[in-house]
Amino acid sequence: MSTIKIGSYKSGAKNCITDVEGVKVGHVTIDEQYNSSNNYACTGVTAILPHSGNLFKEKVIAASYIINGFGKTTGLVQLNELGLLESPIMLTNTFGVPAVTQGTLQYMLQQNEEIGDTTGTINIVTGECNDSYLNSIRIFPVKPHHAIAAIEEASDICEEGAVGAGKGMVCFGYKGGIGTASRRIPYTSDQDFMLGCLVLSNFGNPKDFNYSKYIHDINQDSIHKPEDGSIIIIIATDVPLSDRQLKRVAKRSTVGLSRTGSHISHGSGDIVIAFSTANKVPHFSADSFAEHGKVIREEQGMMDDIFAATADMVEEAIISSLLKAKTTIGRNGRTVKSIIG
Amino acid sequence: MSTIKIGSYKSGAKNCITDVEGVKVGHVTIDEQYNSSNNYACTGVTAILPHSGNLFKEKVIAASYIINGFGKTTGLVQLNELGLLESPIMLTNTFGVPAVTQGTLQYMLQQNEEIGDTTGTINIVTGECNDSYLNSIRIFPVKPHHAIAAIEEASDICEEGAVGAGKGMVCFGYKGGIGTASRRIPYTSDQDFMLGCLVLSNFGNPKDFNYSKYIHDINQDSIHKPEDGSIIIIIATDVPLSDRQLKRVAKRSTVGLSRTGSHISHGSGDIVIAFSTANKVPHFSADSFAEHGKVIREEQGMMDDIFAATADMVEEAIISSLLKAKTTIGRNGRTVKSIIG
Amino acid sequence: MSTIKIGSYKSGAKNCITDVEGVKVGHVTIDEQYNSSNNYACTGVTAILPHSGNLFKEKVIAASYIINGFGKTTGLVQLNELGLLESPIMLTNTFGVPAVTQGTLQYMLQQNEEIGDTTGTINIVTGECNDSYLNSIRIFPVKPHHAIAAIEEASDICEEGAVGAGKGMVCFGYKGGIGTASRRIPYTSDQDFMLGCLVLSNFGNPKDFNYSKYIHDINQDSIHKPEDGSIIIIIATDVPLSDRQLKRVAKRSTVGLSRTGSHISHGSGDIVIAFSTANKVPHFSADSFAEHGKVIREEQGMMDDIFAATADMVEEAIISSLLKAKTTIGRNGRTVKSIIG
Amino acid sequence: MSTIKIGSYKSGAKNCITDVEGVKVGHVTIDEQYNSSNNYACTGVTAILPHSGNLFKEKVIAASYIINGFGKTTGLVQLNELGLLESPIMLTNTFGVPAVTQGTLQYMLQQNEEIGDTTGTINIVTGECNDSYLNSIRIFPVKPHHAIAAIEEASDICEEGAVGAGKGMVCFGYKGGIGTASRRIPYTSDQDFMLGCLVLSNFGNPKDFNYSKYIHDINQDSIHKPEDGSIIIIIATDVPLSDRQLKRVAKRSTVGLSRTGSHISHGSGDIVIAFSTANKVPHFSADSFAEHGKVIREEQGMMDDIFAATADMVEEAIISSLLKAKTTIGRNGRTVKSIIG
Repeated sequence: MSTIKIGSYKSGAKNCITDVEGVKVGHVTIDEQYNSSNNYACTGVTAILPHSGNLFKEKVIAASYIINGFGKTTGLVQLNELGLLESPIMLTNTFGVPAVTQGTLQYMLQQNEEIGDTTGTINIVTGECNDSYLNSIRIFPVKPHHAIAAIEEASDICEEGAVGAGKGMVCFGYKGGIGTASRRIPYTSDQDFMLGCLVLSNFGNPKDFNYSKYIHDINQDSIHKPEDGSIIIIIATDVPLSDRQLKRVAKRSTVGLSRTGSHISHGSGDIVIAFSTANKVPHFSADSFAEHGKVIREEQGMMDDIFAATADMVEEAIISSLLKAKTTIGRNGRTVKSIIG
Repeated sequence: MSTIKIGSYKSGAKNCITDVEGVKVGHVTIDEQYNSSNNYACTGVTAILPHSGNLFKEKVIAASYIINGFGKTTGLVQLNELGLLESPIMLTNTFGVPAVTQGTLQYMLQQNEEIGDTTGTINIVTGECNDSYLNSIRIFPVKPHHAIAAIEEASDICEEGAVGAGKGMVCFGYKGGIGTASRRIPYTSDQDFMLGCLVLSNFGNPKDFNYSKYIHDINQDSIHKPEDGSIIIIIATDVPLSDRQLKRVAKRSTVGLSRTGSHISHGSGDIVIAFSTANKVPHFSADSFAEHGKVIREEQGMMDDIFAATADMVEEAIISSLLKAKTTIGRNGRTVKSIIG
Repeated sequence: MSTIKIGSYKSGAKNCITDVEGVKVGHVTIDEQYNSSNNYACTGVTAILPHSGNLFKEKVIAASYIINGFGKTTGLVQLNELGLLESPIMLTNTFGVPAVTQGTLQYMLQQNEEIGDTTGTINIVTGECNDSYLNSIRIFPVKPHHAIAAIEEASDICEEGAVGAGKGMVCFGYKGGIGTASRRIPYTSDQDFMLGCLVLSNFGNPKDFNYSKYIHDINQDSIHKPEDGSIIIIIATDVPLSDRQLKRVAKRSTVGLSRTGSHISHGSGDIVIAFSTANKVPHFSADSFAEHGKVIREEQGMMDDIFAATADMVEEAIISSLLKAKTTIGRNGRTVKSIIG
Repeated sequence: MSTIKIGSYKSGAKNCITDVEGVKVGHVTIDEQYNSSNNYACTGVTAILPHSGNLFKEKVIAASYIINGFGKTTGLVQLNELGLLESPIMLTNTFGVPAVTQGTLQYMLQQNEEIGDTTGTINIVTGECNDSYLNSIRIFPVKPHHAIAAIEEASDICEEGAVGAGKGMVCFGYKGGIGTASRRIPYTSDQDFMLGCLVLSNFGNPKDFNYSKYIHDINQDSIHKPEDGSIIIIIATDVPLSDRQLKRVAKRSTVGLSRTGSHISHGSGDIVIAFSTANKVPHFSADSFAEHGKVIREEQGMMDDIFAATADMVEEAIISSLLKAKTTIGRNGRTVKSIIG
């Protein structure tokens, strides 16, 4: 088994967050052994771009939801206050957050010479999980240029598993990392909307894994039994949703996460960021009002379709992160096995 | 001094929450002495109607903010989740909340035969302060019919002081109660927007009152020194604001409240509810999307005008509640004096 | 199948919320047909008492969590601000909230003559679900005396199904209502802690039910397909937890709820209230400080045991509410079938 | 006028946050002109250490409150979830956050070789204001070593004004920056508790300043009229408070801020972090329970003393930041004048 299909909603063409038009993803994977020091860089950076234009000058509506807050994600204070995202969403290891934020800031400053000069500052959003089982996190292998490279190489190609920020992650004792999925939300006979998600999976106790029965050849002794972990979940959509509505959608990620077997452990930093590409908000405009056009009427059935599809999609993206991740060797000679052997 | 003008923004025609077009206010005042039992009903009900149509079928966008949550306001869970208000906002004494909610529910059911039968239920919002210094709150003087009467007699007339829910309230040791004010938000040379507020003032220690220096003939010994108290603040506007934006506006009430001298005491139930009449949301509609038309661009200056005007207006409404309230006698022979003697 | 056991933690002696020492539950069930009017009262009241003493004078530490806020639960503003519960937790139908709050208030005032006279007021917590498919909710069958009776008859006996507030509820298209379960949290070889929960189940689309495969003789056509619904979840424990810790526990209810098949629908009022009986807080005391004694160290493993056991227990209580509920006839000749035939 | 005294509570010996025993503050001020590039580094770093021990191994109880979230402070997600602070609180300019977080992380890793190896990771808290009017923020003058230096030179000495992170800040159009104050909370005749605060002031429109009447020789034309700004407020105390109680205290900062004239403008990142040194929480311990000893009983009067003193203290610290800040020259030949001429 290398793919899985959960629920009754159809997937987009690539079953990937990039099925939401304009969304791009870029990965920089770091895999370097330092023989002199016995350190091992087994980590990386992933960038999710809400659209291909200037992200600062055309912001997207966004929201976040904290499933469990034992994490170090940055940028959520302003995202929550204004309901806006104005940077790529960056993912990396816990101690890579300052370097990745620095690199992303440098990239955005270069794109926008007004920032910090003739206009205000910019809010960078960086999420993280702790990959220190495999990665020598204390030596800070991630540098600002890795963040810039991840942004620059972003495309609509779909890569999963031990790639980018997912390089060193562990999920239910197996190799985890990047997973993605998408769902079509039916609207009219002519038109669907699209919902996509990307996860960075790094959580779960092997004994709690709900899919273990589907996987043969498990040698329980060989599984890494992590103390704790985290998951970052990014949700993108072209449904026109307000920030309040996006927060409600983000909250439904918990359903998909729960179905995989998680009870949302104490030490987990389980954080969701959701954005809609439907109504862009310009940074520079003389208008006092924004024509936000339409937003969804929650009273009608589409909201429940989005909720149900989000649960399915998040569950599937998590399982997909496991199915696509290859056995990986990291620091101290540690190996984390692929779930598919 | 019987009126006060704070800040530089112009007021509406009546300097009243009903300057926001469509908003109506109704009061039922209860003032009954029971010689047999030594009880004294010195209380009432106030209803704020966001518009004159069917409030359930045409909901308004709304938000709440808890300055300090030592209070028993009902209906905020759903208001926060959906960003909608679908009933009048009712004010009364703390133990009158069930009766007022019951009466309002009955009124709304009579107006809408579908509720609880062929469509869902309805969410009633009732705020309260504790008037038990003057009012025999334990005998439940407020009944459901008082709530219905307050709704039915709502008009755009502006009454303040010891009226409606304000009948038994005490503010900074003087007679408080209902206060109101409004402000014009400049937009174009042809068009203003309107901001209105109504407060139910029942808080403040006399020693903290910032306006005491303006009031002559204060006999400090004669002032009731309350332990604690509360304030309910209702903000209405015709500026098209989202629920998130309304919450930001509601939060600025704290500024006006602070200027009067409050430090937001431990025992205060200080609660703000804000709504906009600009974009109504129909209960019944086959549309999947709402054309919310325009919402304000926070990046432009109007948001700061609204914030600054809110602070001024809330401060002024509180002071106005004191200036308009007459000396009142209540239970146990207690008298609370008017600030103006 | 009439019972179910989920997960590996042991249950308490009765597998009931009353396994937490001191916790009592009382039900009043209303089942009355009015031939003249074609109305049918199919509803009730349930009271959960945190302990057998004076609940106002000996408060318990508490927290709430809103899974989805399309609901009308009262009393959460103050509970969240102070982290305290000072009344029974009452459950009833949506439009019964004012009457039940009124009755509970009357009961508490009778127990405490100081309230509203020489001391402050009291905060009543009442949760609700909408039973209007079976119950003539518009005629307000629930009266204040029903609330008082539910409190007075509270005991440690365990009743489930179509009883009390659960009388008219529907879950996944089958008869739902009251369900309960408990779990032992291992501490030392000599001592366990106890975790209990009680749910009022009224949610779920039949097609989403994860347990349907275990139930034979389902005629899909006979199942009521509800639009939306709600669940109220009460968690009790004797583990010494702070209000912040209790909120974290409450949040894990979502895991158990998700496992049953819910995606937390738009129209659901899904609300959790959790309390600990370990550290009581006196209303009257001259002490400036409370000796809260011990609270749990989250860094150690017990928190994850509590989280995992909460997920299992909530799932089990929901399923138990279905297994124990008998086929029920209500208004308009409607019948909701028991899941066990 | 070079000092000011607000309210009736007594100050500590130094009227400084370091009056709270164990609290230390360190500043690194950067003031460098680059003639070649016309850039001007006019910025710095400030470190607040909750105690002199190992901050990771002996955490303090903490909370945060967002007055307005247009800001980029990091570390609040975990601080809020766990109610704990495990690092120094660092302050710097907006674009200095990644470098300061990086430097602080390096410092803490050096102090704790277990972090990221045999135990989990660490959460760094860094607050910021935008000093780009005076400082060439786009060239990133702040480096990780500046953060380490600020921590290492922390002492109980009290410096204010244009120092550390305050070097380039502007408040009500005058030179702002670091301000501090403290208050004694009376307990018994023998014992006081101590409350301290430190602010980084960078907000306010000159026309709103409530103290302008006290300042002679103001040439209104010479005042910089900022668009927007921010304030970071740090509150320290030795009163044993829970995280919920600390959040309530933090919220009262709004009162002090409002009194200075702020209406909490749209573009402000106004953020409060509060911690108590009374009950330390060990990182490593085999105990399942923490003996938190006493926490304050909010029902008694001390909580209101703390609230009122917090309002006074925050107001005074803001005014003190103005009174102590000297006229400063920065980029583009810009000068921001001292309020005292």
